[in-house]
Amino acid sequence: MTRTEEQNELEPRARFVRAARGEPVDRPPVWLMRQAGRYLPEYRAIREKSSFLAMCDSPDLAAEISLQPFRRFGMDGVVVFSDILLPLRGGGLELEFAPGPVIANPLRGPADLDRLAVDVAAAIAPTCEALRRLRRELGPRAALIGFAGAPWTLAAYATESRLSRDVEVLSALAWRDPDTVQKILERTSQICAEALRLQIEAGADCVQIFDTWAGVLDRTRFEQLAGRALRRVLSLLGPERPPVIVFARGAAHLLDGLADLGADVVSLDWRSDLGEAAARVGQRVSLQGNLDPTALLGPLAGIARGVREIVRAGRKARGHIVNLGHGVLPSTPVEAVATFVSTAQEGGG
Amino acid sequence: MTRTEEQNELEPRARFVRAARGEPVDRPPVWLMRQAGRYLPEYRAIREKSSFLAMCDSPDLAAEISLQPFRRFGMDGVVVFSDILLPLRGGGLELEFAPGPVIANPLRGPADLDRLAVDVAAAIAPTCEALRRLRRELGPRAALIGFAGAPWTLAAYATESRLSRDVEVLSALAWRDPDTVQKILERTSQICAEALRLQIEAGADCVQIFDTWAGVLDRTRFEQLAGRALRRVLSLLGPERPPVIVFARGAAHLLDGLADLGADVVSLDWRSDLGEAAARVGQRVSLQGNLDPTALLGPLAGIARGVREIVRAGRKARGHIVNLGHGVLPSTPVEAVATFVSTAQEGGG
Repeated sequence: MTRTEEQNELEPRARFVRAARGEPVDRPPVWLMRQAGRYLPEYRAIREKSSFLAMCDSPDLAAEISLQPFRRFGMDGVVVFSDILLPLRGGGLELEFAPGPVIANPLRGPADLDRLAVDVAAAIAPTCEALRRLRRELGPRAALIGFAGAPWTLAAYATESRLSRDVEVLSALAWRDPDTVQKILERTSQICAEALRLQIEAGADCVQIFDTWAGVLDRTRFEQLAGRALRRVLSLLGPERPPVIVFARGAAHLLDGLADLGADVVSLDWRSDLGEAAARVGQRVSLQGNLDPTALLGPLAGIARGVREIVRAGRKARGHIVNLGHGVLPSTPVEAVATFVSTAQEGGG
Repeated sequence: MTRTEEQNELEPRARFVRAARGEPVDRPPVWLMRQAGRYLPEYRAIREKSSFLAMCDSPDLAAEISLQPFRRFGMDGVVVFSDILLPLRGGGLELEFAPGPVIANPLRGPADLDRLAVDVAAAIAPTCEALRRLRRELGPRAALIGFAGAPWTLAAYATESRLSRDVEVLSALAWRDPDTVQKILERTSQICAEALRLQIEAGADCVQIFDTWAGVLDRTRFEQLAGRALRRVLSLLGPERPPVIVFARGAAHLLDGLADLGADVVSLDWRSDLGEAAARVGQRVSLQGNLDPTALLGPLAGIARGVREIVRAGRKARGHIVNLGHGVLPSTPVEAVATFVSTAQEGGG
């Protein structure tokens, strides 16, 4: 399979899944992390009347919010509106959004492990219902993307009331009491895998695992902690699954480890060089990313240039999904997102 | 010069400066970033009675606090107790510590540049007086370390009330209005260089530049923004200067750029592999670091093992200064720091 061979125009859903698997496509698909969000006036109109959790817990609102950016910009992927911490609800953790996540009673040690005895299906039932509706609504016009927090990242939130910059509580616990951390990770691996399995069952064409906080680990500890747990998630999902994307923030030093997990796509933070990463991972995985989200706050011409550079660099990868290197910032102008998507859909010019 | 040749025992001050310059030493010198701080009961005793700024602004207290860890542990380097934001005082910026830095009126554009018209000498006079006293007190028993915030990092604080996780305000401004950002960086470069020059004049044997926030930049933007400004600082200091250490957080992807600035030492974040970094930078610079600060919250045996590994890996560098990969955490046990220092002083065993 070569990426230069002629391709008839694909439908977006097929384009997305094929790029994730490293199969030939007509042009790279495009979406943006946190594309359904505060930068959109129609999102803010809903947010004024509802709490964040109420929006997640209403299949009507969650489906509507997920579709808002798609109606405007026609991305190739539609990500369900939800939150990585929802599956942690319903056990013994007192979780609030204030507006960032706050856990009143984080896990301190082995005696607290039963606070992770959660019913994932109940906790994300509205998300799954939104996915079912979105799947019917979208048909082949877009790939439907589900997501979950990675085991290490879920564990980071579960062990600290408000997360410190470098996840110090969980990191220290992993030095002090590695057995307890392995037990926490075993449980959060099950939660992550179950959340993904349910979303796949509900119609997700692709799922992304957010290991936002894996980047605080050096390579050795990544293998022992976050990486081992991600492997367990992939093994729990089994071989008959749609493509899996793994994202980690500030993780240029972990590229090899991420490429070797058995996932289909590694989503690069904006600080990684996409061309170099493509050369390094070779045929192991496709790549996603990775324009700096703050570039969307600059001139439109600069955004178009940035997207074209990324599309060009992405040709060196076995497959490429155009995205930002992190989520859309709330202060992003709507026209910036329009330029990002349209430039990518012109194939990078 | 080979690092394996026999060396008579050196005095700590000479050991430190020689290692920074890549000259042979008997064993690598050791100190810890933020070694004077909240983890020490004698520091907390002073802090209970004084505000953070009052502690910085009293030469008596600043000198006393700087000496506290040296008295207990006898590190090879004593860093003056101060703060990177002090030189920004006295202009038009309303700066408070609450307890993290908060700037009520950050710079928004070119019209605000005069808020950076500060008198650095007045702003850090107490720090310089503390340095003079420390220099007399220490003699050859320790190298005296001064420090300043890097131009990019000072600019990050000056443009945002409370710094966001990825320095979004300054990063966006650099896309939107690069001329203004270059003007800000030109001014913060002068402030940084002046703060270092005054501290050197007051007796610092070595100075460290903290570019804590350079790691949010990709390589291209590092060269255009933070890197270019650091070069200007080094050029303002001139050739007749004591060794300069440069630290950046989360900057494994910027290693080459940091090694090429003309500084003497690059201080590595805990996520970089010290041995690989040594191979990569070759004879360009010495290296400092880089144990994970959260490792000091784990068992003492693990700390000793970690230090020995770092000392071993550091032998591949042209010179090595043992340190953490970031500052000491407030919850660190005193015995952990004792183990860190004594293991390093045994030459890593």
